[in-house]
Amino acid sequence: MPHIFYGQAKEDHLVLDRHETEHIKVVRLKKGDMIKATDGKGTLYTCVLNEIKKDRSTATIKKSKRVEEIPTEAEHTLCIASQGWGRLRWIVEKSVELGVDRLIIYKSVRSRSYKDKYNKVQLIVRDSAKQCERYAFPEVLFFEDFSFLNILKGNTVVLHKSGRPAELKDFKGRVNLIVGPEGDFTQEEANMLAENGTPISFGRKILRFETAAILSVGLVAFLNGKI
Amino acid sequence: MPHIFYGQAKEDHLVLDRHETEHIKVVRLKKGDMIKATDGKGTLYTCVLNEIKKDRSTATIKKSKRVEEIPTEAEHTLCIASQGWGRLRWIVEKSVELGVDRLIIYKSVRSRSYKDKYNKVQLIVRDSAKQCERYAFPEVLFFEDFSFLNILKGNTVVLHKSGRPAELKDFKGRVNLIVGPEGDFTQEEANMLAENGTPISFGRKILRFETAAILSVGLVAFLNGKI
Repeated sequence: MPHIFYGQAKEDHLVLDRHETEHIKVVRLKKGDMIKATDGKGTLYTCVLNEIKKDRSTATIKKSKRVEEIPTEAEHTLCIASQGWGRLRWIVEKSVELGVDRLIIYKSVRSRSYKDKYNKVQLIVRDSAKQCERYAFPEVLFFEDFSFLNILKGNTVVLHKSGRPAELKDFKGRVNLIVGPEGDFTQEEANMLAENGTPISFGRKILRFETAAILSVGLVAFLNGKI
Repeated sequence: MPHIFYGQAKEDHLVLDRHETEHIKVVRLKKGDMIKATDGKGTLYTCVLNEIKKDRSTATIKKSKRVEEIPTEAEHTLCIASQGWGRLRWIVEKSVELGVDRLIIYKSVRSRSYKDKYNKVQLIVRDSAKQCERYAFPEVLFFEDFSFLNILKGNTVVLHKSGRPAELKDFKGRVNLIVGPEGDFTQEEANMLAENGTPISFGRKILRFETAAILSVGLVAFLNGKI
């Protein structure tokens, strides 16, 4: 993993939390060492570590550089029904690498609860962004239901086996991708979503939800020059 | 998981090995129950279970149907350097879902050994194929070095950060994708591969090897109508 850390900027220094402090210790950095860090909002900092405690470290900012812009309106949104942790984690990690701008995790009838996953998801986002040297972290939003549909702008596609075959054009421009839970949408949910977007499917093979999700995110990223 | 089993056809019956017998027990099937099974060579069998032992089961074939052709020459090949098991497993599982025809696992200078993984990889291929109802399993080959280059036919692309930006056309037709190990190719290996294929990269973001691999396999599958 490239050694990039996440910290919150406060005047002339960065504050790094427990998770980052653990990372600092794992890679055996010491007081006085230079580090690179980001605020997750598009800025790369060069700093000197000046305090490493148990739960918290601080570093003095020597240089800062704007390297990435956060779109003022999120361009590409991936909406995932909350899943078992293994798959959810994996979708989050890969979609951050592939440059998704906004992640929405929602509860559908057949979803698992996400209440215990809020912090875990944020940490995966952070680690994945650090890993791929992404300085503007995607926004993560949690919804108890399908009311997230009201905030989506642009073209919405729903990945579902009932949909027409996917075409290249489905992944171009400002796209919102909606992915269901492992146990599928209920018929009522599928009908409601079909009124709010275009159901598409990779029709010849039965892809698991997470595979279809990541392939779609990758297509959006590739066809729009994000990767 | 859909209940499809893998067995070897012997005259009028199928022989199911220990792994399949465990699957039979997990889903609580009994002697006399009907099952669907495949030989991994493109045939779907409808059978009746007639013996369930500890390590082995048998089923009498009632119907057989050819549902999928194995390309006489493998069309799409993914060549992966042996990796830590977590990532290797994941690449194998997803590439089977995405319809890869041939998997080559090879040893590069910075690869981990794969000697203990031969059977594990075959089981992942089988389970992933059953999961997505794929009846013709991809061929899996292991190589100690880069001599697999001699058997590749068609267009060969090497995923590497030194490559030119990937284009849609790189993924059309009969494509061989070569992916390196986590620790990257050596300079010597990269030079040699550049003489045997076209190095391409998803240039704007640093993608992990497994992410670039699966996105590429997905692009090949999607652009060639395999999924």
